Amino acid sequence: MSKKNVYMGIDVGGTAIKIGLFKEEGEKIYTGQIPTRKEKNGIYILDDICKEIHQILEEQKMDKEQLAGVGIGVPGPVTADGEVLGCVNLGWGTFQLEQELANKLGNSIRIKAMNDANAAALGEIWKGGGRGFRNMLFVTLGTGVGGGLVLDGSIIAGSNGAAGEIGHMPVVYNEKSRCSCGKKGCLEQVASATGIVKEAKRILKNKKIPSNLRMISKISARDVMDYAKEGDIVAMQVLMRLGKYMGIAMAHVASIVNPQVIVIGGGVSNAGEILIDIIEKNFKERAFLPCRNVEFKLAELGNEAGMYGAAFSTLERR
Amino acid sequence: MSKKNVYMGIDVGGTAIKIGLFKEEGEKIYTGQIPTRKEKNGIYILDDICKEIHQILEEQKMDKEQLAGVGIGVPGPVTADGEVLGCVNLGWGTFQLEQELANKLGNSIRIKAMNDANAAALGEIWKGGGRGFRNMLFVTLGTGVGGGLVLDGSIIAGSNGAAGEIGHMPVVYNEKSRCSCGKKGCLEQVASATGIVKEAKRILKNKKIPSNLRMISKISARDVMDYAKEGDIVAMQVLMRLGKYMGIAMAHVASIVNPQVIVIGGGVSNAGEILIDIIEKNFKERAFLPCRNVEFKLAELGNEAGMYGAAFSTLERR
Repeated sequence: MSKKNVYMGIDVGGTAIKIGLFKEEGEKIYTGQIPTRKEKNGIYILDDICKEIHQILEEQKMDKEQLAGVGIGVPGPVTADGEVLGCVNLGWGTFQLEQELANKLGNSIRIKAMNDANAAALGEIWKGGGRGFRNMLFVTLGTGVGGGLVLDGSIIAGSNGAAGEIGHMPVVYNEKSRCSCGKKGCLEQVASATGIVKEAKRILKNKKIPSNLRMISKISARDVMDYAKEGDIVAMQVLMRLGKYMGIAMAHVASIVNPQVIVIGGGVSNAGEILIDIIEKNFKERAFLPCRNVEFKLAELGNEAGMYGAAFSTLERR
Repeated sequence: MSKKNVYMGIDVGGTAIKIGLFKEEGEKIYTGQIPTRKEKNGIYILDDICKEIHQILEEQKMDKEQLAGVGIGVPGPVTADGEVLGCVNLGWGTFQLEQELANKLGNSIRIKAMNDANAAALGEIWKGGGRGFRNMLFVTLGTGVGGGLVLDGSIIAGSNGAAGEIGHMPVVYNEKSRCSCGKKGCLEQVASATGIVKEAKRILKNKKIPSNLRMISKISARDVMDYAKEGDIVAMQVLMRLGKYMGIAMAHVASIVNPQVIVIGGGVSNAGEILIDIIEKNFKERAFLPCRNVEFKLAELGNEAGMYGAAFSTLERR
């Protein structure tokens, strides 16, 4: 019988499913992806994944017995014991994902299911920006704002699988427009790519400040960040607002869970050090002294973080 | 040899040390207290405790072998592995409290050390307002505002033993006066007994609203709460402000750790249901939907919570 020594990490997205094969130390053996078949409320997805797993092992000339664990991240809330509480993007309702995968793959394989942001968080703490830490908040600033909380090396799922969902912290008290969630003043409204563009347009429309952003027909969050680096005043105002509210939100996080490191990823984080610096500056001004000693770092694994983390979650010794 | 079946819970305060002896199911066998000797940077405290432990066992005609665990809560940050990071009130600096107690009491006894608010949180989840839950935030609204976070049945200490220190979350953006911590706009400034009195006086001074509070020479937080129940407008304004910012702060907590229950204790919580109701109402208006399903409950163990929780922390099967 072969030794169990490889780990599969799966990141299920609305368009594609990424699958990675890893050794215990995190060495990547193989990565690939298959399309996400969303027909019939996503009933084909798990079978497609299992078929692909077997195919990859075959291609790698590996015995199925070598597969020690399969971790899977999905775009929706998942409880600590692996129950999916609905994934709108996939057409999935509520079901026991870990059990179902175990039924398909066999009980000798360690199965872990989790929310995709949580998987990415685990990936970043294993092999990315959170390497070497045990207590971390991972933040994704993308189209929306999400996150994953790792305490003492383990993901905190929360009672309804919604821990780390920091995008909807009500931090902006005077916000007039509504967030996609129906509330007003969510962190996502100032710190997401969508929010960045919206705020830039709002300033350009309401204030007569000269700005090179006025030359662009379809402003992106990246444009705003790039122009902020060049000192464009409107772009700087947007960035400063983001920094202020992210600083406040992270000060709350520090008071509640007292992490060692906050790792920032997602498309907006491509802005790099300027983003980290302004968030950290605002954080230090507002965080309670005993919780203030937090390092801010950029994420390092990009869109591979979820695969890494899903695989990592199935490691026995961690 | 006697069976190990009793547990000691110790709550070290600045004036007195409370000691309780419990059975595994939480039945209280004995409680008592001794004065806290703070002379010489508190070097007598641990020996006093050990002496008292032996005396209690003797009085109860118990064999020392029966003592399965000793848990201790102290007024300062304690790391997850039992290192005290300073207790100003006791004169203590940084040292390994669990190890030192083990040296004095013997290695056959399970020793756990923790912050006193965390001990109280564990007590409330064992035998108080959080009974039956696994994920809880415990909040104390007293002279200051503190808290303890329990996830999956265990205390979250945080990187510097400062998790759950919610009193200094920066929630009031337009606050002019400084908190005791040096910052402006902390939750403690609106939700502590001290903050309640200060705010009542501020309104009485600055606004010409009739109020029965004007008849009182030395207003207490209790007066404000009592008058709010009677519909006094100034008192109501103070309570509504507390409710608003506690609602916001608890919405942040819900987004970050997604608890099942928030238990509110401390002197201010003697106001009872009116306090819970206004906090819950403000919370529901602001919390992200997937995390909104939180129960709000009053603490039940009063100042015995710390003893209960310290004892509970040493239970093997929990």
